[in-house]
Amino acid sequence: MDEDELIASVFAPLATAAGADALGDDVATFPCGEGDVVVTVDALAAGVHFFPDDPPGAIAAKALRVNLSDLAAKGAEPFGYLLALALGKGWTADWARAFAAGLEADNARYGVSLLGGDTLRAAGGTTISVTAFGRVPSDGIVRRRTALPGDVLVVTGTIGDSALGLAARLAEAPPFQVAPHHAAALDAAYLWPDPPVAAWRAVRDHARASMDVSDGLVGDLAKLCRAAGVGAWLDADAVPLSPAVLAVVAVLPEALDRALTGGDDYQILAAIPPERVEAYLADLSAAGVSGAVVGEIEEGSGVAVHRDGRPVRLADGRFQHF
Amino acid sequence: MDEDELIASVFAPLATAAGADALGDDVATFPCGEGDVVVTVDALAAGVHFFPDDPPGAIAAKALRVNLSDLAAKGAEPFGYLLALALGKGWTADWARAFAAGLEADNARYGVSLLGGDTLRAAGGTTISVTAFGRVPSDGIVRRRTALPGDVLVVTGTIGDSALGLAARLAEAPPFQVAPHHAAALDAAYLWPDPPVAAWRAVRDHARASMDVSDGLVGDLAKLCRAAGVGAWLDADAVPLSPAVLAVVAVLPEALDRALTGGDDYQILAAIPPERVEAYLADLSAAGVSGAVVGEIEEGSGVAVHRDGRPVRLADGRFQHF
Repeated sequence: MDEDELIASVFAPLATAAGADALGDDVATFPCGEGDVVVTVDALAAGVHFFPDDPPGAIAAKALRVNLSDLAAKGAEPFGYLLALALGKGWTADWARAFAAGLEADNARYGVSLLGGDTLRAAGGTTISVTAFGRVPSDGIVRRRTALPGDVLVVTGTIGDSALGLAARLAEAPPFQVAPHHAAALDAAYLWPDPPVAAWRAVRDHARASMDVSDGLVGDLAKLCRAAGVGAWLDADAVPLSPAVLAVVAVLPEALDRALTGGDDYQILAAIPPERVEAYLADLSAAGVSGAVVGEIEEGSGVAVHRDGRPVRLADGRFQHF
Repeated sequence: MDEDELIASVFAPLATAAGADALGDDVATFPCGEGDVVVTVDALAAGVHFFPDDPPGAIAAKALRVNLSDLAAKGAEPFGYLLALALGKGWTADWARAFAAGLEADNARYGVSLLGGDTLRAAGGTTISVTAFGRVPSDGIVRRRTALPGDVLVVTGTIGDSALGLAARLAEAPPFQVAPHHAAALDAAYLWPDPPVAAWRAVRDHARASMDVSDGLVGDLAKLCRAAGVGAWLDADAVPLSPAVLAVVAVLPEALDRALTGGDDYQILAAIPPERVEAYLADLSAAGVSGAVVGEIEEGSGVAVHRDGRPVRLADGRFQHF
C-alpha cells in the first residue's frame, strides 16, 4: 500500500468535515466566525509513549485523546484534528486500517473530524503527531496562570489508574497482586485514556484556571501554581481513586505515591471560585463527569500535600511525614 | 537540559504572538474574525527527509518552509505554526539552540510566530512535525480540483535544483562534474528550500487552481489534473532552470528528466485563466517572485510532455521521444 492509497482508502473516510476536502488537497480550511480558535499539538513515540505492539486502535485513540484532554481543560469545544503519521519499520496495511478504525470510533465518540495530515516513513519507530482544534468565545480561554488564592481545587474522574497500569506493564514480575479484573482495569486505563472531553463547557463557565493532569497530579498542580504565582494545599485523602487503585493501595500502600505523581491521567484539575463550586460540580455531573474537591489555592508558592490531616513531603518518590 | 528548560529558554523566545502565551500553557489561541483559517501539517524524519548531520538550522527551516509552501500555493497568508519535535538519540542543547535559531530567522523572514508545540524523546531518529496556519477570505482557498481547460500553467522560481542537489549527495561518486559554485548552489537548494511565500496574494487574486511542487513537477501536475478531471500539456523546454541546473544538463543531458520529476522544489504550479496571466506574472514580479508559462490545461486526462516541439514519454525514469 503506497501513500496515496493509504490516504484515499484508509484515512479519507475519516475526513468528513467540508473543509477537509476529502484529503484531496494540501491543506484544510474551516470558517472562523465569532470567538477564538484553540490549537494544541501532542506527539507520541513508539517505545516512549506507547508499546510498539499495543493495539493500533488504542495507539490512535491515545494520540487523539491526549489532545482533546488539553482542549477540554481549557474550556474549548473540539471540532477537528490533523494527523502526522510517521510510520516506522514493519508497519502493515492491517496495522494502518486498525489505527484508522480507532480514530473513526473516536470521531463519533467526540464529534470531531479528521481535517488533514501527512503520512511518511520514519527511519526508526512510529511517531504520531496530532494537532487538535477547538473553539472558545473571544478571550474565553481558561489559562493556568489565572488561579487566585481561595480558589477551590477540583479534579475530575479518578487519579493513578494509568500510572499503576504502566507500572505493572514495565515490571518483570507483578509489582502487586490484585484481582484480575482490577489488573485489567489498570491496563485498560493506560491503553485507553478517557479524558472528560464533555466537561469543556463546565470548565469554560466556572473555572478560573485549569489544566489537564498528564504528568502527575502533584507535579501538574505545582506547574499551575508556578504559572499563577500562588501556592496550593492538596488533601491526598480526598483524591478520587478507582476501586482498582484502592485494591492496589490496600496491598501496597506506597502505590498511592505513584498514583498521585505518576501521570497519564488526562483528567482536569481546575481552580474554581468558591461560590462556583456547587454549580461546577453540578454541570460536570450533567455532562457525565465526576468531580471531587481536593484542595485549595493559597498565597505563597509550592504545593503542600496533606495526608491523615498532617503535611507530608515527597522524598525518593514517596510521600513521607515530616 | 530537560524539557521545561528547553521550552522556556530555547523555544519561548520564538513565541511572540499573544495567543501563544509565551508557551506557558497547553494550548495556543488566535482570534478569528472574517474569513477562513487554512491549516496544514508536514513532517520530516531523519534519514528520510533530511540527513541527521545537516545543519540544525537548515532542518528547522525546511520543516517550516515546506508548510509555508503549501499555504502560499493555496493563496493563504501565513501567520503562525505549531512544532512537535521528537528528539532522537544523541541530541544536544547546542543542536536544539541552532535548530531554534533557524526558526527564529524564518519568523522574521516570513512574519510568522511559533504558537506552541510539544517536545518529546523519540526512540529512533528525530522527527519534526510542523502545523502551519494561514488565512484566506471566506471560501477564498485556491484548490487543485478547480482547474479548467484553457487555463495557462505558470510555475514560479526554478525547477530541479534540489533534486540534483540530493542526487549529488546520495551518489558515492559525483554523478556530474560542474563548477564548484554550481555544485554549492544545488546543495544549498536541497538544504534550504526557498518557497515563494510572498506569492500568496497573487495566487489568491488570479489563480483558478494551484498546488505546491513538492514531489516533482510532472507528477504533481498529474495530481492536479486528476483532482480536476482534466489533462495538461507541458513544454519541458519552457520550464525555468537555474544556471546550476543548466550546467549539469550541459554535461549530463538526462539530468533534465530528474530535474522535472525529482521533487523538493517547493515552487508554485498554478492554473491561470488566460486573461489573468499578465496580471498574475506582474503581481508575482512585484512580490519578488519569478514566473514562467510552461503549458496549458486541456480536456481529457494525463500530462503530455513536449520537448523540442515533439511529445515525449517517461520510461525508466527518463523522457523519451515516442
